[in-house]
Amino acid sequence: MGYENAWLNYRRLQGSAESTYFSSDCTDSQGRTARTAIEELKRAAREIFGLDMQEKSGTQDAGICLKLNREAAAGEEGYHIYEKDGRVTVESAGGRGLLYGSFALIRMLQTGRKIGGADLTEVPQNPIRILNHWDNMDGSIERGYSGNSFFFQDQKVLVNDRTRAYARLAASVGINASVINNVNVKGNATKLITETYRRELQEMAEIFADYGISLYLSLNFAAPMEIGGLDSADPLDENVREWWSRQMEDVFTGIPNFGGFLVKADSEGRPGPFTYGRTHADGANMLADAAAPYNGTIIWRCFVYNCQQDWRDRKTDRARSGYDNFMPLDGQFRENVVLQIKNGPMDFQVREPVSPLLGGLKKTNQILEVQIAQEYTGQQRHVCYLIPMFKEVLGFHTYCEKEKDTVADLVIGRTYGQTRCGMAAVANTGDDENWTGHDLAAANLYGFGRLAFHTDLSSEEIAGEWIRCTFGMQPEVVEKVSRILMMSWPAYEKYTSPLGIGWMVNPGYHYGPNVDGYEYDRWGTYHRADHMGIGVDRSSGGTGYAQQYHEPNASMYEKIETCPEELLLFFHHVPYSFRLKTGKTLIQHIYDSHFEGAEDVEKMVAEWESLREFLPEKIYQRVLARFEHQKEHSKEWRDQINSYFWRKSFVEDEKHRTIY
Amino acid sequence: MGYENAWLNYRRLQGSAESTYFSSDCTDSQGRTARTAIEELKRAAREIFGLDMQEKSGTQDAGICLKLNREAAAGEEGYHIYEKDGRVTVESAGGRGLLYGSFALIRMLQTGRKIGGADLTEVPQNPIRILNHWDNMDGSIERGYSGNSFFFQDQKVLVNDRTRAYARLAASVGINASVINNVNVKGNATKLITETYRRELQEMAEIFADYGISLYLSLNFAAPMEIGGLDSADPLDENVREWWSRQMEDVFTGIPNFGGFLVKADSEGRPGPFTYGRTHADGANMLADAAAPYNGTIIWRCFVYNCQQDWRDRKTDRARSGYDNFMPLDGQFRENVVLQIKNGPMDFQVREPVSPLLGGLKKTNQILEVQIAQEYTGQQRHVCYLIPMFKEVLGFHTYCEKEKDTVADLVIGRTYGQTRCGMAAVANTGDDENWTGHDLAAANLYGFGRLAFHTDLSSEEIAGEWIRCTFGMQPEVVEKVSRILMMSWPAYEKYTSPLGIGWMVNPGYHYGPNVDGYEYDRWGTYHRADHMGIGVDRSSGGTGYAQQYHEPNASMYEKIETCPEELLLFFHHVPYSFRLKTGKTLIQHIYDSHFEGAEDVEKMVAEWESLREFLPEKIYQRVLARFEHQKEHSKEWRDQINSYFWRKSFVEDEKHRTIY
Repeated sequence: MGYENAWLNYRRLQGSAESTYFSSDCTDSQGRTARTAIEELKRAAREIFGLDMQEKSGTQDAGICLKLNREAAAGEEGYHIYEKDGRVTVESAGGRGLLYGSFALIRMLQTGRKIGGADLTEVPQNPIRILNHWDNMDGSIERGYSGNSFFFQDQKVLVNDRTRAYARLAASVGINASVINNVNVKGNATKLITETYRRELQEMAEIFADYGISLYLSLNFAAPMEIGGLDSADPLDENVREWWSRQMEDVFTGIPNFGGFLVKADSEGRPGPFTYGRTHADGANMLADAAAPYNGTIIWRCFVYNCQQDWRDRKTDRARSGYDNFMPLDGQFRENVVLQIKNGPMDFQVREPVSPLLGGLKKTNQILEVQIAQEYTGQQRHVCYLIPMFKEVLGFHTYCEKEKDTVADLVIGRTYGQTRCGMAAVANTGDDENWTGHDLAAANLYGFGRLAFHTDLSSEEIAGEWIRCTFGMQPEVVEKVSRILMMSWPAYEKYTSPLGIGWMVNPGYHYGPNVDGYEYDRWGTYHRADHMGIGVDRSSGGTGYAQQYHEPNASMYEKIETCPEELLLFFHHVPYSFRLKTGKTLIQHIYDSHFEGAEDVEKMVAEWESLREFLPEKIYQRVLARFEHQKEHSKEWRDQINSYFWRKSFVEDEKHRTIY
Repeated sequence: MGYENAWLNYRRLQGSAESTYFSSDCTDSQGRTARTAIEELKRAAREIFGLDMQEKSGTQDAGICLKLNREAAAGEEGYHIYEKDGRVTVESAGGRGLLYGSFALIRMLQTGRKIGGADLTEVPQNPIRILNHWDNMDGSIERGYSGNSFFFQDQKVLVNDRTRAYARLAASVGINASVINNVNVKGNATKLITETYRRELQEMAEIFADYGISLYLSLNFAAPMEIGGLDSADPLDENVREWWSRQMEDVFTGIPNFGGFLVKADSEGRPGPFTYGRTHADGANMLADAAAPYNGTIIWRCFVYNCQQDWRDRKTDRARSGYDNFMPLDGQFRENVVLQIKNGPMDFQVREPVSPLLGGLKKTNQILEVQIAQEYTGQQRHVCYLIPMFKEVLGFHTYCEKEKDTVADLVIGRTYGQTRCGMAAVANTGDDENWTGHDLAAANLYGFGRLAFHTDLSSEEIAGEWIRCTFGMQPEVVEKVSRILMMSWPAYEKYTSPLGIGWMVNPGYHYGPNVDGYEYDRWGTYHRADHMGIGVDRSSGGTGYAQQYHEPNASMYEKIETCPEELLLFFHHVPYSFRLKTGKTLIQHIYDSHFEGAEDVEKMVAEWESLREFLPEKIYQRVLARFEHQKEHSKEWRDQINSYFWRKSFVEDEKHRTIY
């Protein structure tokens, strides 16, 4: 057993009473996922108890019984686990439910919960729980920080043991869909929909299907021209529509359990319907019509903005662009189109307000897109446990309706009754032994799956589960690693860009501090700092972005007095002398939070160092090396940011610490 | 005839009396360069007069006679051109002199000077006039802005018509040596000294020899380990010394007219003697001893500094490093070692003081290194005629002696009587049709050769020659292009970083404004701007760099009152409120100069636009396209720099122009 199994790192349980259930199992389902579930239970029995589980045919004899019941209240993906008379039943209306239930049962062992007397029903809340891999055909991963792709290498599709290991990990936390290629579809990736790669994708899809995962692909909107020999990709062109219909037929009928397509169009240089004077709805619907006969889903990204902005222009506001582009189209999309909306209006910064499209759109299927690849949050060299951020997003009241108005309500379909909706995460995996580069970054992959399944789980609960599954149940480890995880996002926020302003990173690779890195660039990402203050006025007197929210959010953001302070500089240009609720001036807050953030890292490192005796040396050292980098790098952040503002404002630090 | 011949773009002269000389020629030399000279005269006769020049055997009969006279006062590289009784004699003690004299004669035609009555003696001042090409074996060129290499492609050495065309161009302006590969010697380039590439280099060297050019190579100090199978490159290790001796023997005896080696050691990550606790003298002398039997030259670069500096450290000063590293070694180098010293102590910024090593070193051979590749001066997308900068450098009084103390005196060997010395230029050529990307950038290649030959030529004279040779003698063209060239460096300086501070560029590729781009980085290149002022204190109270100069320069730079204003921020941290000699404050100067610089570009563009009727449309448009970019880009510079300082200082522009 090793850490290559991440949180499925089963440990021997000695003298556990639970072992009795794991002597035999059975199922009445003929399905492939139930089959997988049985295999997983056997593996767990072997690895945890050293038992060779016997498979029984009669559901009355087995210690664990997977019971398919088409009428089960938990539905096809949910499960009911109950213990009675020394026997455990996992019941579901579908094979996926049986598989998820089996993993849940194993997780009970891993986390030390009693099976005896169990009576647990869980139903996944988000219908679509999807990973977006930004993997390229050459084996590189855009914004990948964990090695190379395990889906592609040298322009070839890889199908091997890692494929199965991946599917297993994903399914164990309830992921039911995966887009394997980068949303920026170029070169050979455009051909993934053709015969060229069909056989390998079939093989992969079979493995995925064993684990209840639908394979998705990102597609290239210009494919009809690039590989179809057409002279147009106009979504209203009959030839183009026919071409797509043929492609879709081939893909959906040729690849088992194929889910659909993810599309980045008219965004950052990618082709799209704008070229032909068509709308995003025209583009998405054309694809949706072609996919409809196979019940295929078209996931259309809302990450559309002007990336050729002039920094001198203070009227254009990138934050507005998603709403401006997509709100007029609300209600125009086909039933099998889903708009995928990033959590914030910019791009995965350490702190952003919730996108006003969430709660804005009322007649459109929606997926919330988060990024567990830590592009702007330390690139898996810094620890940054992101579940608390996602929790805040999910809990945000949009006031789109009087009740059921949170982001969670919207994306799980509770508000408007949609069924094609859910959560997507830009994945943080690669071919590194530990999957995620930084061992602690796996908590985000685990956590995303668990949270998408059950949005009411707390960050602490998820952290606790992940730690126990990964490192075992020793209280010191659980307590300290949990503390590290829970400190990590606030710490990262403190020592990087202040109060929601974001973007103070090196352009291009987005790592490390560079206060003016994007200030005079074309990407619409500015802080507007001068000698007197900093921030972007997005009130009515500024870009008007605050007014894209429903009341009372609009008014709350509109006024500097009511704007949540963690977003103060996102919404307002604020003098350094402005007093925050703490009584501190803005500039003093910048200094203090940066010193604090770097100190927090030292605390995290100390916590980790105290765990040496409890952890395998290899893991301990691997994480320690990254912590040591984080410690130095957080000081670099602290010093650059503080020096920048000190040199600009000439306001002394009240505590007279060293600023350069 | 086309512009692929650059300034050897011969035009027909109709009804010119000079044609009579070009009916026949002869030479009494058997040498290969004299042979080349005859061929060049024939070509000129054909292209300029449509004459098929007859070659005579008797020196009395010919219109032009190349006369080899071992006693000639002009020496082996100089020439005496005189006309008598309708016959022209070019006399020299060497074949190179005959070749240079022939090109000079042709240039007289190109520039409209009369041959009748000519009596002209010219002797090249710099013994070594060398181009440094930073070409890589894969065909790329480090800091190359004119396409790909014509020396290398796909790990192969190229020898073809372009090789000859290059040698011809170089020789026509008196270049007598060329280093064809990048000073950063990696991969296959390390093997250029081995049999692998011997045959191609022999062929290339033969062509170079026809034009009097010695082939040089850059070498990899770690070659004994990387390709020699040794476990050390220690210059005092006998095995290493023997290895190098064998290599040198092979190279010098195997490649005709081979000149020697250029070495970048212990610099920016390149290997060198420091690894073994040896000095640069140990390293250079070891190579020099191996090359001595063949009279080979080792050119050792002084570009050595700490490139892992902490920006928070204000004591370490990159400007000091060349002097600190090499002054203690003065007198320790072999006679066949030459130290190659960049004109300034930093790295080819638009304005730097002269390196204090020039005038510091008294017992060491020296080459002045300039860069005509416009790495920091617009990358051949902006016009920047650099000859005026080089003139300032050459004319700088170092006060190393009471007289003959200028940089020109030092590098031509007048001060200390050295003979291995001269000038090197990092070349600006590539495989672009016009050689230099921007057509006007060819003036720097031409100008470098002419200036190295004759440091007393003025910038205007050189510009005038180049324009006439390239575009013809129409007065409008000569006048306006000359005005453009002469405006260009001052304009570039105005709209980029102010008063000698440098480095406000995008890191890595060094193009475009980025005020803080290097401010928090590891390269030792800081401006230290804050709310009150800007600049680096290099006086005795600061880093002490100013004291590396002889008096009275040291005192002049030491004091803010006497420091030349164009270098003010290089030597001093100066408040924005400081009054310059114009009466303007520093901040107002920054604003004004940036507006002026951008306006100057508009003037240059207008000048160019007025020349359309006088120039071939292709050339006109090609240059115009670059000018249009320069116009926009100079505004980007203006606005970013001005906005940065306005936002930092909050001092209003007195003229209330738009600053963002």
